[in-house]
Amino acid sequence: MYFIYYNHLSLMLYHKKKFKSIYNFIHKPNFTLKKNFKLNSGEYILNPSIAYKTYGKLNKKKSNAILICHALTGDQYAAERHPLTNKKGWWQDLIGKNKVFDTNRYFIISSNVLGGCMGTTGPNSINPKTKKAYALTFPEISIKDMVTLQLELINSFGIKKLFCVVGGSMGGMQVLEWGINHSNRVRLLIPIATSYRHTAQNIAFHEAGRQAIKTDPYWKNGDYIKKKSFPKQGLAAARSIAHITYMSEEHLEKKFGRTKKSKPLSQIFEGSFEVESYLQYQGISFVERFDANSYLYLTRSMDRFDLSEEFRGVLQKAFINNLSRWLLISFTSDWLFPTSESKIIVNALMANACDVSFVEINSNRGHDSFLVKVPRFYDILGGFLSGVKINAVE
Amino acid sequence: MYFIYYNHLSLMLYHKKKFKSIYNFIHKPNFTLKKNFKLNSGEYILNPSIAYKTYGKLNKKKSNAILICHALTGDQYAAERHPLTNKKGWWQDLIGKNKVFDTNRYFIISSNVLGGCMGTTGPNSINPKTKKAYALTFPEISIKDMVTLQLELINSFGIKKLFCVVGGSMGGMQVLEWGINHSNRVRLLIPIATSYRHTAQNIAFHEAGRQAIKTDPYWKNGDYIKKKSFPKQGLAAARSIAHITYMSEEHLEKKFGRTKKSKPLSQIFEGSFEVESYLQYQGISFVERFDANSYLYLTRSMDRFDLSEEFRGVLQKAFINNLSRWLLISFTSDWLFPTSESKIIVNALMANACDVSFVEINSNRGHDSFLVKVPRFYDILGGFLSGVKINAVE
Repeated sequence: MYFIYYNHLSLMLYHKKKFKSIYNFIHKPNFTLKKNFKLNSGEYILNPSIAYKTYGKLNKKKSNAILICHALTGDQYAAERHPLTNKKGWWQDLIGKNKVFDTNRYFIISSNVLGGCMGTTGPNSINPKTKKAYALTFPEISIKDMVTLQLELINSFGIKKLFCVVGGSMGGMQVLEWGINHSNRVRLLIPIATSYRHTAQNIAFHEAGRQAIKTDPYWKNGDYIKKKSFPKQGLAAARSIAHITYMSEEHLEKKFGRTKKSKPLSQIFEGSFEVESYLQYQGISFVERFDANSYLYLTRSMDRFDLSEEFRGVLQKAFINNLSRWLLISFTSDWLFPTSESKIIVNALMANACDVSFVEINSNRGHDSFLVKVPRFYDILGGFLSGVKINAVE
Repeated sequence: MYFIYYNHLSLMLYHKKKFKSIYNFIHKPNFTLKKNFKLNSGEYILNPSIAYKTYGKLNKKKSNAILICHALTGDQYAAERHPLTNKKGWWQDLIGKNKVFDTNRYFIISSNVLGGCMGTTGPNSINPKTKKAYALTFPEISIKDMVTLQLELINSFGIKKLFCVVGGSMGGMQVLEWGINHSNRVRLLIPIATSYRHTAQNIAFHEAGRQAIKTDPYWKNGDYIKKKSFPKQGLAAARSIAHITYMSEEHLEKKFGRTKKSKPLSQIFEGSFEVESYLQYQGISFVERFDANSYLYLTRSMDRFDLSEEFRGVLQKAFINNLSRWLLISFTSDWLFPTSESKIIVNALMANACDVSFVEINSNRGHDSFLVKVPRFYDILGGFLSGVKINAVE
């Protein structure tokens, strides 16, 4: 059941009950770093926490751990119902007993990223120094920082070497950082539907979303928590923009085409096409579980991510002496991170004679394909994982 | 010179002076219909006006008139500096003495569309009955209505048959309506970079823009004129979204790539990439010359446009016995109205043995190619026009 929002009032009323849950929900388990965390920028975050979930059991040799990295709007609830939305986990079809990420064999760790809003320290966490929400005083964070903090979590488990790090989109960017900066800590790397840096168009779409958030008067220059407001319409609009880029034109056309709503709404601009209602619904349901400042910070991290930067723009140099085993996956209809982007990374790996496999999978579901049950995708992931013996890991 | 807006206040201050000009400027010449204008929906608009511009001279036989139809955010100032922005006319390189639309030969009529905001009756015109701005009481309008009103203007000149009707994007949709409903009133039809109906993705992008406008508290449910406010940030965000779709990924990458601003701005979310500043600038300069409600009404007209609708979904039937001569033009990098869309129309014309030519032009400028000086595009337009003698028209 959903409705079409029309003005701020109706939206605020609708979300009045749900509004608090995003910030008041206690996400467990939660790992807190017992020291200052130094960011790549040189700035510090005091005692950051990571909210995470695990599935399966860590074996005695601690050699069967797989780290799952989530995308921009994902979270740690990869293989279970989401506590706020009650929706299925975003990779619930992939993770579990006898599934691709088989919890009979593997110990799965799924953690919420730094800057996120599901229990890991982010812009709307309380700053221990001021006892108030950081808001825009939260320092800028990078994909590298997300990974450095994940490493602390991995260390807390006493895991010396991960069996695998895997993720799509922004999750794939984290996989790439793992593969370059902590290659000795991971055997298999699977970056999916991702890129080594955002194109101008990628940045532009994110910027349009940020503009929509900042347009919302309830954003209040990021200080909405203190002022007890929330930029829901702006965040919903940002989500709508992004959502279009996650779907293929073909899938949108097949799913909605020009189908009109059976009951035309009274107001002229409430939307008369199904695709409009769908987008509005996507926006509205998103704000139930996501935070506007997190959206600003995380999109910014993605935009700034550029793996070639510290190698003077020569990506190839990033993979010199890389000993991990790589599998890159792209999808035919993904126009946000098209196959050509994955191929750039594959070529850079191959130029170093690295152990890399690559597959482009037929799918009409666009960028979102990595969140969809595409049989060939599942088969390839499963085949790649089962081809490597866990016991071989020290 | 431009600046990056950060909050409503700064934007309002910046535009304080310019704000009024959009609504107070008197656009001349202006044709007013001396009767009620019946819309396709059955509703009426009382004595609508059309603001238009002409270039060249109408010959004695009144056989040399070319009607130029503008796109969504275009206007009648096709071949002269814009009175509000002082920028070059949007087809100034095409229209003029010895140019493709040669004013030595042709009489060019360029009129602002119904629902527009440059002097033609639209949502923010004064309703003669209430003496107040229509705002959302303005009836819904269609592309067909725009054309029906243009016909009244053509009649006022005593022109029986137009030599040519030409336009790109939403202008192309108008050309298609001319070709189907008033085929006997026009010899040559040139729809450029257009489609016979919006896809779900086209609608989705427009809807995201409308959401951004409605998110702006200054929109005030469309009543901003009465309340002396203006939803500038929302309209600017909508323009940013749309602008991305007008450019090719290749051109954006070539023009901006990941170039960062030389002077990083102090505020974390003011944008650090050139492409962000560019989009912000596009948004800001757009609100100087455009109206938010017009944007809502016109995008809606485009979304609802479906040439096949009155032919039970069979486009081919729209062109039965069509006697005009057609030239369709698309551009290789246009992903908003790709070549495949033009081909659907060409096929429907060919199935009726109509006189149709079609050309796909190489250009990396995306949908905006029709507004860019692409030599091959200019040559083909010129060749097509000069191949038909004016005197042959009765």
